[in-house]
Amino acid sequence: MWAQRTITLQARARGFHLVTREVEEAVPELSSIRVGIAHVFIRHTSASLTLNENASPDVRRDFSEWFDRAVPDGADYFAHTLEGPDDMPAHIKASLLGPSLTVPIADGRFSLGTWQGIYLCEHRDHGGPRKVTITLSGDSS
Amino acid sequence: MWAQRTITLQARARGFHLVTREVEEAVPELSSIRVGIAHVFIRHTSASLTLNENASPDVRRDFSEWFDRAVPDGADYFAHTLEGPDDMPAHIKASLLGPSLTVPIADGRFSLGTWQGIYLCEHRDHGGPRKVTITLSGDSS
Amino acid sequence: MWAQRTITLQARARGFHLVTREVEEAVPELSSIRVGIAHVFIRHTSASLTLNENASPDVRRDFSEWFDRAVPDGADYFAHTLEGPDDMPAHIKASLLGPSLTVPIADGRFSLGTWQGIYLCEHRDHGGPRKVTITLSGDSS
Repeated sequence: MWAQRTITLQARARGFHLVTREVEEAVPELSSIRVGIAHVFIRHTSASLTLNENASPDVRRDFSEWFDRAVPDGADYFAHTLEGPDDMPAHIKASLLGPSLTVPIADGRFSLGTWQGIYLCEHRDHGGPRKVTITLSGDSS
Repeated sequence: MWAQRTITLQARARGFHLVTREVEEAVPELSSIRVGIAHVFIRHTSASLTLNENASPDVRRDFSEWFDRAVPDGADYFAHTLEGPDDMPAHIKASLLGPSLTVPIADGRFSLGTWQGIYLCEHRDHGGPRKVTITLSGDSS
Repeated sequence: MWAQRTITLQARARGFHLVTREVEEAVPELSSIRVGIAHVFIRHTSASLTLNENASPDVRRDFSEWFDRAVPDGADYFAHTLEGPDDMPAHIKASLLGPSLTVPIADGRFSLGTWQGIYLCEHRDHGGPRKVTITLSGDSS
């Protein structure tokens, strides 16, 4: 069986945000899949998705600390600067983390490790709402 | 339904190149899929695939600026240097960006965001032609 | 057809390790799939999976050289330090490389490029055994 839905995640501050529940609850068809794969895809080039530690907020803050140092705003070697000093770094961070996640489905739920949560990675200062397309496929028998 | 094709992308200069149309047109079976997933997989370890901004060539040039600084050619801490100063950096860049993309299919087309395009990321100075395997799965009813 | 199995990879030293055969042999259902996709998913946030060069051990050693410089242990800008100086870097490396791989299946086997192998990327000093969920889907006709 196949199901596909596009949802809009509300605008969030630049940084890393846990959205596991929001994504999982957006696809009620999930509950009928015994074994399968969920594909979560962000329809933007300056925000991304990753899986990481779902407990300590410090981890998400430290992600910002590292990424903002690794890809600095307003670096003088960037030519694409028309949209602001945070724009080109946002594109690069988006590709380093990637636009999609694939998660196993087991018994009607995302089958994540104990400590894994879905991060929305907002790389712009004012990124606005973000659209995410979730595609489920699996065996419902 | 399932379909799988391997195509060869012509040799390109080191850097980042838009290949969305080339990939999409290589799989005519796409048009019969109502909802599904396209898997695009590069069969190499010194080139990669990513999704990013499909408009400004400056973005693709700035990708090179950043990646060539982050993983410098000929860094003195690399031991694997037999194949040239660009070889080991190419392997690392390939894993940072990843060998595959998964893209939602909707109504017979890749369902990308407005600004998203497929980049072939060529990390070698003389990488040669690159083989890409495209696997489609979906519901054609 | 769908199949899903969770395996445990034995504890390994911090670094990059080839596990292609171990993963492939864990899913005997693979042999009956003509065309499909294998999804390999690590259920942790301080280890990851990637595809890279399967021949020279120098490549895997150089991965450590680069990643340990790019995300240094005990960097003073990290706040999440309770679990040791290698913990927060492990989380970041895990997201840079990603928790999952998707690999084409052709004629009952992983369809990898000649030089591609699956790396288990252990980012902790003492990470312990790692659980990996492998989900296969494909056409067995």
